[in-house]
Amino acid sequence: MSKHKNILFIMADQLRWDYLSCYGHPYLQTPNIDRLANMGVRFDRAYCNSPLCAPSRASFYTGRSMFSTGTYWNSFPIKVTDWTIGDYLEPLGYRCLVVGKTDTAPDLENMSRLGIDPESKIGQKLRHGGFEPFERDDGLHPHYLSQRRPQPNYNHYLRENGYDHPNPWQHHANSALDEHGKVISGWYMQNNNKPANIDEEHSETPYMTRRAMDCIESMGDTPWCLHLSFIKPHWPYHAPAPYHEMYTKDEIVPRLAKESEKDNPHPVMDAFMRMRGSQHWARDEVRETVIPAYMGLVKQIDDQIGRLLTFLEEKSLMDQTMIVFTSDHGDYLGDHWLHEKDTFHEPSIRIPLIIYDPSLEADQCRGIVNNQFVTGIDLLPTFIDFAGGKFVSHRLEGQSLVPFLHGDKVGDWPDFVVSETGYAGRMARHYLGLEPWECRGYMVRTERWKYILWEGFAPQLFDLIYDPNEFIDLGQDPKLENIRQDHESLLFKWMRHRKLSAWRDDWADTTIGPFVEDEIGILIGYWEEGEGPQKKP
Amino acid sequence: MSKHKNILFIMADQLRWDYLSCYGHPYLQTPNIDRLANMGVRFDRAYCNSPLCAPSRASFYTGRSMFSTGTYWNSFPIKVTDWTIGDYLEPLGYRCLVVGKTDTAPDLENMSRLGIDPESKIGQKLRHGGFEPFERDDGLHPHYLSQRRPQPNYNHYLRENGYDHPNPWQHHANSALDEHGKVISGWYMQNNNKPANIDEEHSETPYMTRRAMDCIESMGDTPWCLHLSFIKPHWPYHAPAPYHEMYTKDEIVPRLAKESEKDNPHPVMDAFMRMRGSQHWARDEVRETVIPAYMGLVKQIDDQIGRLLTFLEEKSLMDQTMIVFTSDHGDYLGDHWLHEKDTFHEPSIRIPLIIYDPSLEADQCRGIVNNQFVTGIDLLPTFIDFAGGKFVSHRLEGQSLVPFLHGDKVGDWPDFVVSETGYAGRMARHYLGLEPWECRGYMVRTERWKYILWEGFAPQLFDLIYDPNEFIDLGQDPKLENIRQDHESLLFKWMRHRKLSAWRDDWADTTIGPFVEDEIGILIGYWEEGEGPQKKP
Repeated sequence: MSKHKNILFIMADQLRWDYLSCYGHPYLQTPNIDRLANMGVRFDRAYCNSPLCAPSRASFYTGRSMFSTGTYWNSFPIKVTDWTIGDYLEPLGYRCLVVGKTDTAPDLENMSRLGIDPESKIGQKLRHGGFEPFERDDGLHPHYLSQRRPQPNYNHYLRENGYDHPNPWQHHANSALDEHGKVISGWYMQNNNKPANIDEEHSETPYMTRRAMDCIESMGDTPWCLHLSFIKPHWPYHAPAPYHEMYTKDEIVPRLAKESEKDNPHPVMDAFMRMRGSQHWARDEVRETVIPAYMGLVKQIDDQIGRLLTFLEEKSLMDQTMIVFTSDHGDYLGDHWLHEKDTFHEPSIRIPLIIYDPSLEADQCRGIVNNQFVTGIDLLPTFIDFAGGKFVSHRLEGQSLVPFLHGDKVGDWPDFVVSETGYAGRMARHYLGLEPWECRGYMVRTERWKYILWEGFAPQLFDLIYDPNEFIDLGQDPKLENIRQDHESLLFKWMRHRKLSAWRDDWADTTIGPFVEDEIGILIGYWEEGEGPQKKP
Repeated sequence: MSKHKNILFIMADQLRWDYLSCYGHPYLQTPNIDRLANMGVRFDRAYCNSPLCAPSRASFYTGRSMFSTGTYWNSFPIKVTDWTIGDYLEPLGYRCLVVGKTDTAPDLENMSRLGIDPESKIGQKLRHGGFEPFERDDGLHPHYLSQRRPQPNYNHYLRENGYDHPNPWQHHANSALDEHGKVISGWYMQNNNKPANIDEEHSETPYMTRRAMDCIESMGDTPWCLHLSFIKPHWPYHAPAPYHEMYTKDEIVPRLAKESEKDNPHPVMDAFMRMRGSQHWARDEVRETVIPAYMGLVKQIDDQIGRLLTFLEEKSLMDQTMIVFTSDHGDYLGDHWLHEKDTFHEPSIRIPLIIYDPSLEADQCRGIVNNQFVTGIDLLPTFIDFAGGKFVSHRLEGQSLVPFLHGDKVGDWPDFVVSETGYAGRMARHYLGLEPWECRGYMVRTERWKYILWEGFAPQLFDLIYDPNEFIDLGQDPKLENIRQDHESLLFKWMRHRKLSAWRDDWADTTIGPFVEDEIGILIGYWEEGEGPQKKP
């Protein structure tokens, strides 16, 4: 009997692609993730479908691009008609579960209208991005009485372990103590060089890793797809000892920014640079204080992945489990005088993506680097392919990466990549005086160019060969009008192929007209009898 | 107590805009529809959102454009997340019912996945385009044992009235008798000059009209929105006596076509011209035989509308009932050497649209002609407006026409109109050797120009000032490249604003950042405490 196949889909939150040693970070060593890369394929040009948590995750979970899912910003639901991972894998015998963050909101309006009880089995899944919530926890629990974000199990766990506070997530895991023993908040970056007010083993990343192990152990002989979705290194950028001081300000990479980027910037960039967070990140002391903590949080994830790999080896699961490591989007960390994400510079939209496929067919590709343009929507088709399911062409907008894992010839892989954004939830909207639905941008990058269409503004354009760090916006260069038009056309064509139907599009057998008119007896405006149906030419 | 308001939404099937006397037909007199136009507003530049039954109707019923609904062709469902008329009007106390055709297919795949019983109250509505099926009948019942199209109540009615055949729809209502008394099929157009094998009062149009009256009578004091959706003058083009001979070949308008249209035509037009129906309609004898029957079927509808208006008067409902008369799309009837619809010449996409609003506010506009570009998706917002409901900006893509009915100032009404098509179900696809999802076209017309983007082919372009009959395709004219680019940009911009979200887009109160961070306690990467939240500028 051949062993069943599992999928371990690991995501870090807001992890830049270049903060791993296998992606070239000069100081941050991530040997466990690197080991995974050596066992699998490392995709060097992977992009998120949208540089924001909920939209990007909606794309990962549905295999559909951001505006196709309708997840325009955080808190926007995945529509109940957008099928998620479990819809494809459960019919193949899988259980699909989440430990950690999904940041998905339930489509309560349609659930109510369609009579779907949120507490029913179907309702539960729809509320959690299609996953069974083994331990759903989106992080970010500043209040212990929030209506918006219920208290996590993690708080109960902490209290059981002696962290005696109504909200130990805030008071312990994401706060520090000052020199007088007073609790100071990890939300403020000036405190991020101090250790979290918690033992490392009780902090969020090891906790979630152990919960993932619990989940895997509980699966027995059932095939599973587990989404282990870490809450870090997303802000609050607060690391427990010893990770808070593992790196110094001498080990951070220089800011990727030029003073000239502040001169006459694109209006949308200008608005983002004006935001308070960007203003703070523009100060060197902020980078020197926070980035070592960010690196520590990544290092902690790497250590936990090491534990997890050992666990899988001990359980003899390595030869039957696909392991994916990725992130939902990046983090500017002050590059280009920006903070957070939302816009389309590489630090914001490029993500790590490593896939280990245990199959024998993948042996010839172990340790290789793939340079194709791939995005989050390619993962679900990959999972379906790995699990032996069928690609569903009227819903899935991505393509399976399995051929790249096996070294198979791939026909017409796209030579461009698209990412989309909405920024209605940002102060930038107010600086620009826009209505929410006007705050949209679309990026198409090809081998050489990155073209960005901003609704209501001039486009941006970067030459990635002569200006790989994206310091010079050529969006107004009159000599490059043809380049911009070509890329706009490419984007338009791509957009015309959003998959919006609830029915298959490979429906040759339903062609009305001569093929089936004998069967259904419908004759569309013909003159004589006796000519007989026309045959397919 | 003010009377409640009703909506009578009448649709003819495949009725060209110009086959009514109020729209200028020189021979076909339609005094009852004209009377409605004199009591209301006649929209002279109304277009369908797609020139095919199911896609066009999906747009009428959802207020959303064709590709937004995902109804790419007949048999493609309206997604369960696409809200329909009843979803908006029922909360206002309305019952929304259909008598006649909707041509909507149920989204069974999602219903099954979401656990919605097709026989439940919600399931029933989802199966019938959102209407309560007072008498759903899509017409076209060539077989009496069809699995695809269940037998209509109409067949029982006919048998009760002495039409003794298993399928009297076919054998009587849509067949004739030859000179030997043998039944000959109305599907074949050579027979359409003979009277249907049925008494006029039992034919489809009067039957549906009486059923509409039954429905209205049964409503009592409940506000209603009734969709009376005639099956004619759609093929089979078969009229009962005396309508079959009310018009002669001397009373048909000349064919709108030039021989030059056959010289080096656009590939898509070429493929459609090659289809058997087009070949038949290219023969003059076909036009001379069928168009008089088509005119008779329209005349019959007009007479029935006269009955219906009298009925509403007798029931004292005229002062509380909005009455709409429209069609789902046109019919080439051999113009441009084409038959049917699908492509974008005016005979195919232009529709009649007359709206009578009983309100006092509409008195100043009675009998006027409106020349704005309007489409099927503007009706649902009109109904909501009339019924006192609220426009829902994240789902509805059209706009209320009520301001035009009341003579109110209208701000920024679009100066262009878009229609979309798919032709995967047509033989044209096979002539062109395309995959189903490649068979798409998009039209944008402005005051002067009609630009058509055909996926995979050169565009079409018509100058509607110098060539109002669309005989000269300027799609390749090098001098007009700028015009084509401008229209392509317009189309692209329009397409970027499809409404695909399941959540509101006027969500100022949910803006993350300084507005709500006090409330939810999330602070995005700030340095110091004590600066206080940033205020909206």
